[in-house]
Amino acid sequence: MSESNSVLIGRKPVMNYVLACITLFHGGAKEVNIKARGRAISRAVDVVEIVRRRFLPDVNVQEINIGTEQLKAEGSNASSNISTIEITLTR
Amino acid sequence: MSESNSVLIGRKPVMNYVLACITLFHGGAKEVNIKARGRAISRAVDVVEIVRRRFLPDVNVQEINIGTEQLKAEGSNASSNISTIEITLTR
Repeated sequence: MSESNSVLIGRKPVMNYVLACITLFHGGAKEVNIKARGRAISRAVDVVEIVRRRFLPDVNVQEINIGTEQLKAEGSNASSNISTIEITLTR
Repeated sequence: MSESNSVLIGRKPVMNYVLACITLFHGGAKEVNIKARGRAISRAVDVVEIVRRRFLPDVNVQEINIGTEQLKAEGSNASSNISTIEITLTR
């Protein structure tokens, strides 16, 4: 699977990411990975639900993985943990 | 599985829910369900990650499901959709 089929969820409005997913599927993608960290995790779930319930009913959630990443603050040795989610959609 | 092994994630500090999960497992539960809606979804993932990485390394994520619930505002016919997550932990 090429990495170009990933959508990284940030702070933009949910519909921006919904559109990104739909564009990938309409471009022929069979699989799209939705990734998010921290507070954006809820938005990632919103994106998936809107894509499959409102726009592309033939898209399925194949896999959901959660994890933890260590973030290092610049110029310091302190690191903090942030939760991550990765949702794989297939058509 | 009895419903008493569910932890519903709300707006309290993350550690409150972490403690609730640990208490259930220490009380003999083999399975604990973590549920959250809307903005609390990110917090649910934080709870799971803290439980299994910091406190109970023998706990595994067995299943993650996401979905949508319809909420009806009181005294109105309008309804809005809210995303949900349910994470099943087993020991």
